[in-house]
Amino acid sequence: MSKTALPLDLPLLADDLHRVEEELRASVVTEDPFLTEVARNLIVAGGKRLRPVLSLAAAYLGVGTASQNVVRGGVAVELVHLGSLYHDDVMDESATRRGQPTANARFGNFAAIVAGDFCLAVSAQIAASLGVEVSGLLGYTIGELCKGQVAELQSLFRLDRAEEAYFRSINGKTASLMSAAARVGAITSGLATEQIEALTVYGQRVGMVFQIVDDILDIVSTDEQLGKPAGNDLVEGVYTLPVLRAFRDPEVGEELRGMLGAPIERSLVDQLRKLIRASDGVEQAVGVARGFADEAVSALGVFPDSAVRTELAGFGHSLLDHLPA
Amino acid sequence: MSKTALPLDLPLLADDLHRVEEELRASVVTEDPFLTEVARNLIVAGGKRLRPVLSLAAAYLGVGTASQNVVRGGVAVELVHLGSLYHDDVMDESATRRGQPTANARFGNFAAIVAGDFCLAVSAQIAASLGVEVSGLLGYTIGELCKGQVAELQSLFRLDRAEEAYFRSINGKTASLMSAAARVGAITSGLATEQIEALTVYGQRVGMVFQIVDDILDIVSTDEQLGKPAGNDLVEGVYTLPVLRAFRDPEVGEELRGMLGAPIERSLVDQLRKLIRASDGVEQAVGVARGFADEAVSALGVFPDSAVRTELAGFGHSLLDHLPA
Repeated sequence: MSKTALPLDLPLLADDLHRVEEELRASVVTEDPFLTEVARNLIVAGGKRLRPVLSLAAAYLGVGTASQNVVRGGVAVELVHLGSLYHDDVMDESATRRGQPTANARFGNFAAIVAGDFCLAVSAQIAASLGVEVSGLLGYTIGELCKGQVAELQSLFRLDRAEEAYFRSINGKTASLMSAAARVGAITSGLATEQIEALTVYGQRVGMVFQIVDDILDIVSTDEQLGKPAGNDLVEGVYTLPVLRAFRDPEVGEELRGMLGAPIERSLVDQLRKLIRASDGVEQAVGVARGFADEAVSALGVFPDSAVRTELAGFGHSLLDHLPA
Repeated sequence: MSKTALPLDLPLLADDLHRVEEELRASVVTEDPFLTEVARNLIVAGGKRLRPVLSLAAAYLGVGTASQNVVRGGVAVELVHLGSLYHDDVMDESATRRGQPTANARFGNFAAIVAGDFCLAVSAQIAASLGVEVSGLLGYTIGELCKGQVAELQSLFRLDRAEEAYFRSINGKTASLMSAAARVGAITSGLATEQIEALTVYGQRVGMVFQIVDDILDIVSTDEQLGKPAGNDLVEGVYTLPVLRAFRDPEVGEELRGMLGAPIERSLVDQLRKLIRASDGVEQAVGVARGFADEAVSALGVFPDSAVRTELAGFGHSLLDHLPA
């Protein structure tokens, strides 16, 4: 999967996505050029803007257009995502993201933490202008992000990590904000309650697919395809669904568990990834993700058939179809 | 000044302050015991709860009582303060606060950053339940906090730090949130616009006094009085109002500037503090703070005379009167 192209082909969103990008860049401009520069570090590095795309697509699905409030809702959601990435990069001591030096690498931890807080602050201001429902939702979702991160932290290097704990963690880390993105698009478009709930479920399910695919790519991709060292999750002690399933494989499970459970040398990563690929862990993880993709399709059943619905319905499965063979 | 007693004698707030404390402790309880423990680390360490006190006092001044919404507003403001302290301690690599090990020292930077984000998230949820005005205000104020911190960062070790930059920085870092605290109390009590604005100004001005006093204490207090090493601002390169004024002193200014402007050995701190105290820097800073305290008194003029008004009006000046001789 390319890091920039999105397997969601909705050319009718292009103009609105351009508006999102402009609003996003303008949102963090302050009278302080330094703060502006740090807070834009990650914005100008680009990104798929998947969350605003979900907000816009929800609006198009429901009312056939995206109002200025939908655009601003997408910006507010993306700012939560960016704020969490600033903090992630400090927590993980990452030097690059999206091929660019991170804010912590360029400007130090102090500036990077403040930039993350500032993104959250600007997001909260935009959310307030969209009403208490959006404000409350984003506050709730940031809390879910925190819970997901802490859950992951506690599971590091644990061979006995329960799948349920994995699902809770990726729901908090990823699916909750994608769900919120779709929900914000629905709320700011004035959709009916049933439609809002359907899009909330849809966003959550494609978020689960998205994260499981990300976790599978760490096992099956090359460094080049990934744009970062593959197998990084194994090094960091994050045992994801394909790995947890491989642990149970009668052929390789025991050997794999023997090699993991504690920090490893990076030189072991290729061998470990090969072992996991020799198991049926990846295939099983794909199967689980297909289940979530199916539920995403079902959720959209409350909407009449349309080109937008077809494209959204296909999103989860297309993420899985684009996995390297 | 003791670190726990507050020179604001309002016994009628005691019950409400107890409610604030209970709500505060309950607000960060989650299904994850670890997250709960990290997020409560700073809460259980105690604190003056000055910001909720301002919210409650604003309510008593305006309507003679504090509703549940005022209590919850005070909690939301205090959570912003606590969230920023979690992040401050990571940024400053602090090992203790309020005499207790910091979250970063106990649980690592990862958990401490998440705990700070979580406090902001819970605050945003409470704020949303109080309406868009409170939500927007807190989002705005977190942005001001960030601006104040970045402004300070850029001025470190600068002998040519402008006083205006100092005032902007302490407004963002401290006064903006104390202003928001009073404003939230006024808004959630349904006060008239004129009264809301008056309390907003009042909170800002006492916030300026509070921070200038804090900056003076770094020069005039002992380690014991302060509960932390005195002169820390000098070591960190934060040149505050008494120091900026001492730079201009004809007797000691030149010597002082010669010794500062770059990182120093901690062993030089006593000599530096003595030099500053030999100047009229502290006295001038007290004079500037008195000006802010006077403006705080004036702002309350829109309210009829009452015991609460007298106590609030005296707050700024009493902070200055409690400075060590």
